[in-house]
Amino acid sequence: MRFTSETSSGGVLEQLFTLGEIPGVLWTPEGAVGTRPLVLMGHGGGQHKKAPDILARAGRFVAECGFAVVAVDVPAHGERPKVEEYDRIATENQARLDAGEEPAPLIAGFQALVARQTVPEWRAVLDAVQQLEYVGAGPVGYWGVSLGCGLGVPFVAAESRVRAAVLGLGGAPASASASASASASAAAQITVPVEFLVQWDDERVPRVQSLALFDALASAEKTLHANPGKHGEIPAFELDSTLRFFARHLG
Amino acid sequence: MRFTSETSSGGVLEQLFTLGEIPGVLWTPEGAVGTRPLVLMGHGGGQHKKAPDILARAGRFVAECGFAVVAVDVPAHGERPKVEEYDRIATENQARLDAGEEPAPLIAGFQALVARQTVPEWRAVLDAVQQLEYVGAGPVGYWGVSLGCGLGVPFVAAESRVRAAVLGLGGAPASASASASASASAAAQITVPVEFLVQWDDERVPRVQSLALFDALASAEKTLHANPGKHGEIPAFELDSTLRFFARHLG
Repeated sequence: MRFTSETSSGGVLEQLFTLGEIPGVLWTPEGAVGTRPLVLMGHGGGQHKKAPDILARAGRFVAECGFAVVAVDVPAHGERPKVEEYDRIATENQARLDAGEEPAPLIAGFQALVARQTVPEWRAVLDAVQQLEYVGAGPVGYWGVSLGCGLGVPFVAAESRVRAAVLGLGGAPASASASASASASAAAQITVPVEFLVQWDDERVPRVQSLALFDALASAEKTLHANPGKHGEIPAFELDSTLRFFARHLG
Repeated sequence: MRFTSETSSGGVLEQLFTLGEIPGVLWTPEGAVGTRPLVLMGHGGGQHKKAPDILARAGRFVAECGFAVVAVDVPAHGERPKVEEYDRIATENQARLDAGEEPAPLIAGFQALVARQTVPEWRAVLDAVQQLEYVGAGPVGYWGVSLGCGLGVPFVAAESRVRAAVLGLGGAPASASASASASASAAAQITVPVEFLVQWDDERVPRVQSLALFDALASAEKTLHANPGKHGEIPAFELDSTLRFFARHLG
């Protein structure tokens, strides 16, 4: 893990780093000493580790809760190079969409492929960040919606350090074959508390598929928050709720 | 409005009263002076104005937000006499259930009948309570789930003083004729912010009907909170959320 820059603003220290080929950013309270909860944030499709919604949330997690927050670029996003295989699949998928195929299974298949790379990358990031004296091996949370949910579900299912997760804007097939889908079967391995965000008028994720993914989570404590609006229109008050959710389960 | 008793505990003044034939209870901060938000709470079926869930919520609304809270017994509940017509309908409905009819339309029809009495009663209660110097004509909120939702939807739709409502554990027919139902058509007249509680494994209200009632609300800001568990098992953290919801919209 190599730190490449360091800035500070409003009591929040921001450190850019690389871990092997993974570019990342770590936010911690300025002058932090000792172990604290760590939240890993997964960005959306076409976004990157310092996208506005990541920055807004990370700033509040650090400033108001004293947490550490880490985000990295997903392969083929942000500062990372294109991935030829992904480009090829994206082109194929576009042709299949043009031919009238349903988008949801194509998206799910693609996210499952990317997750085979991101799950081990994110585990390596946790390993490295938790070595830092001012982060340490405290409880871990995960936050990610949209692509961050598609990649987050298999990550949270696989990584026992994660004690609570905020997910959403993602779905699972609602058909009889739902249990055979990758997203639903990973969701069925999640047992930690989950706050799950649904946009009631999501133009990308059919409502019934959002509800099916929430349904598939095996967590005894899971809470679905649905609000009117399109995919990108999560209301501001949900960030307050997310803060309290993580404070309750990681604090 | 006639006060019949007064007790005080933990900074909360509790005053029992009658308004005509309606027995009620008013909670306010001890020593309160001047206008403040007022929350009207509607109790569940078979319950009464001082049911445990009402008491727990009212105590926190008063102690933590400085609100006034009022609750009254619904006809044929608590201290109020039986209503012959209701008993007759209940007997008829039981026979129809035994004959295999769907419960939801029977419940909805019965609640619509009771609401014809409770809507004017609750408006009269607001009129009377808002005359008190230590309550005044501040913003009004409504809280009610189950029967309190069935009676609350037509009340909130009719009463312009209500600025925000917490509803839930209730439904509307999810069929093509949904817009023809009393609950859905009243819900379509509600435009104030609503927090809507759904129990994901509700044994009394089919999930699809809960979602249909939420869907029917015309509010620009409405937020659905769904949690695992049966009809009576709303998790404790939802009370924290309710407090913040009312504080945001009435405070």
